[in-house]
Amino acid sequence: MTENAPSFGLLLFPNVTQLDLTGPYEVLARVPGAQVHLLWKTLDPVRSDTGLTILPTSTLAEAPPLDLLLVPGGGGINALLADEEVLAFLAERASGTRYLSGICTGSLVLGAAGLLEGKRAGTHWASRGFLSAFGATPVAERVVVDGTLFTGGGVTAGIDVALRIVGELFGEQTAKLIQLSIEYDPKPPFDSGSPDGAGAQVTDQLLARMRPMLDARAAAVAAGAEALRRRRSARAS
Amino acid sequence: MTENAPSFGLLLFPNVTQLDLTGPYEVLARVPGAQVHLLWKTLDPVRSDTGLTILPTSTLAEAPPLDLLLVPGGGGINALLADEEVLAFLAERASGTRYLSGICTGSLVLGAAGLLEGKRAGTHWASRGFLSAFGATPVAERVVVDGTLFTGGGVTAGIDVALRIVGELFGEQTAKLIQLSIEYDPKPPFDSGSPDGAGAQVTDQLLARMRPMLDARAAAVAAGAEALRRRRSARAS
Repeated sequence: MTENAPSFGLLLFPNVTQLDLTGPYEVLARVPGAQVHLLWKTLDPVRSDTGLTILPTSTLAEAPPLDLLLVPGGGGINALLADEEVLAFLAERASGTRYLSGICTGSLVLGAAGLLEGKRAGTHWASRGFLSAFGATPVAERVVVDGTLFTGGGVTAGIDVALRIVGELFGEQTAKLIQLSIEYDPKPPFDSGSPDGAGAQVTDQLLARMRPMLDARAAAVAAGAEALRRRRSARAS
Repeated sequence: MTENAPSFGLLLFPNVTQLDLTGPYEVLARVPGAQVHLLWKTLDPVRSDTGLTILPTSTLAEAPPLDLLLVPGGGGINALLADEEVLAFLAERASGTRYLSGICTGSLVLGAAGLLEGKRAGTHWASRGFLSAFGATPVAERVVVDGTLFTGGGVTAGIDVALRIVGELFGEQTAKLIQLSIEYDPKPPFDSGSPDGAGAQVTDQLLARMRPMLDARAAAVAAGAEALRRRRSARAS
């Protein structure tokens, strides 16, 4: 770790799903000595896809050295898949950063940056099919570890992913202390957290609501995968 | 509900534990048509106890009519227990608000406002003993429902509490759709979310770290309970 003070960078972008970010933030910020940086293009307030407004702490250009770079997901990732500044930042930083993480559809942004090629990865269940466009093997698990890459399922999976990261980086005792401090002993009132548990009727109703967003995402993923292919060909030639 | 557009108010105060607030926020904001208001004395940015900075959306003085008023917890509650402006706001609003909720140590703030007398209530496991100072019966459950009062255990319990609130107010189907959308199918990597699961060694180590904060809280609770008693006597005489 960076001089015994671990440095975590979380991307904070417009229309992020804030719990994708705030779940892991709470876990990572409780690591003793941790510095958690919220990174975006400017320091202006950033609005989540449900309206919660959070302040970045560092621009991408001035981001300090990081031990972990984490990309949350949400509606705003469709724009990121075509955002050359963000994709270049991720691709450049990935080589100097020890661990990478994508939460929910944040994984797709890592994919568009060329960081999932040949890797096992997870994402939100409704977007899992998009992973293969970026050369990743989709895995239907809540936490997926492939070497130094930690990806996860939808939204609340970020809490599990972050605890797993802390366990691997700082040992089980540190992770267990944090889990107890945030009383993460979940008791969902319904068994509706996965399509299997929720059943076809609930799942189909949600997919119908998500359809316009998922159609836009399919187009954004196709364009992002094509752009990645062009960048690769340009480098190879 | 308020003209079919449910209106939720969440208190946003300095040194809040941000996940106490952002967990329920994500659930409540996904109720169709919902307006979620982040309430504080001013509209200046508010810093959480781990450094995440969030913008309020309304001052206490200008808060709109609410269907639900929710108080999260965190280190900052010790100051709230002596904050007459906040306690008066909660006490005044409670009578016109259909549902009340306290997440984690936010429950203690409801207690200091005189809103837990004779009620069953939950809070963070390490602060549970403080509830009785405010006339509440402490309950060691993650979600505690007493009439229109919904309280919960520590930090992440806010997600469970919010899903339970949505289920009671808008029906199970709405709650299940939201649970599936945030993929709340938790798989904690360790069984360390409660003192029982974590065991004595982890629990004792965490309590030792929390000791200065818990000692300060004990003093703040005693002062808050005494102030409440004086206000009650003044009204009765």
